[in-house]
Amino acid sequence: MQELRDRILAEGVVVGSEVLKVDSFLNHQIDPAFTMHLGQEFARRFAGSGVTKVLTVEASGIAIALAVGLALSVPVVFAKKKQALTQQGDCYSAEVFSFTRREATLIVVTARYLSAGDTILIIDDFLAHGEALRGLVSLVHQAGAKLVGAGIVIEKCFQRGGDNLRAEGLRIESLAAIESMEPGVIHFA
Amino acid sequence: MQELRDRILAEGVVVGSEVLKVDSFLNHQIDPAFTMHLGQEFARRFAGSGVTKVLTVEASGIAIALAVGLALSVPVVFAKKKQALTQQGDCYSAEVFSFTRREATLIVVTARYLSAGDTILIIDDFLAHGEALRGLVSLVHQAGAKLVGAGIVIEKCFQRGGDNLRAEGLRIESLAAIESMEPGVIHFA
Repeated sequence: MQELRDRILAEGVVVGSEVLKVDSFLNHQIDPAFTMHLGQEFARRFAGSGVTKVLTVEASGIAIALAVGLALSVPVVFAKKKQALTQQGDCYSAEVFSFTRREATLIVVTARYLSAGDTILIIDDFLAHGEALRGLVSLVHQAGAKLVGAGIVIEKCFQRGGDNLRAEGLRIESLAAIESMEPGVIHFA
Repeated sequence: MQELRDRILAEGVVVGSEVLKVDSFLNHQIDPAFTMHLGQEFARRFAGSGVTKVLTVEASGIAIALAVGLALSVPVVFAKKKQALTQQGDCYSAEVFSFTRREATLIVVTARYLSAGDTILIIDDFLAHGEALRGLVSLVHQAGAKLVGAGIVIEKCFQRGGDNLRAEGLRIESLAAIESMEPGVIHFA
């Protein structure tokens, strides 16, 4: 998606060899109109898949998932990190290791918001090692729901998570795929 | 806002005397079209205030803030809970105690996303004791920005946070104000 690649080149900041900061428009400050464009592009790519619900994980995935849900006219569910006091009863959960934060968190969805009758599209902002995506896929499988694939805003291909999950049969649509990067230089696939 | 009150009566679940679960449409599962209505209502109430940026805190505030930002055509910034590895350099921060989770968290905004030239509208899903809102107000003051007020989806008036902050001069617009509640019964103000 050219609009996204242009934005990454204009505003993205590479820190070290693995972290791309896109805080100015995607995951700290959000450009609402641009976010809607991302949502419409995912909706276009997954049109006709029969999606009944969009699944993401807090916090950075929420805005994009909302845009997708709006474009597809379906509800959005966001998995919560760790179990809150107000979230009791039956839940699906998966442990996710974050390489950025160097810690494991539990992602949790209340069981009644994912059911065997659902057809799920997973949405997230980044795909790197694939840990978060793998956790979300696990939640869908626990619910016995159908999974049509995953829509990712930025895939860092060199961290291999996408390749591994595609090899297992998951359809992944990335709007920007980064082949390599270093401070000041970003190469798209 | 009648549409919101109807939804709360139809789907809200009161747990004990202080917790209202609206997981089915507001803060776990999200109804995208309904969220847009909430955003448009806040935009209507704060029209002409010269808002340049919407500020919220992750995670439940993000969807509503995005809807407001879209309706007002301004960027959204969400404060993060605790400092992430990728968030370095100058930040504004405030400690917030959550009565629901019984713990204090730090909410943080990178300094360059809130500036003295900004006119800020704060958006959040709930107002109870007012701790989160007070933290967000502190971030705005730290930045030297102008604050036009706060838009809250559900105010639990009996927990007094709103009254206290209004007494300090803050304009607060709540779309639903709950005077009292117990399991099975919700009284709006």
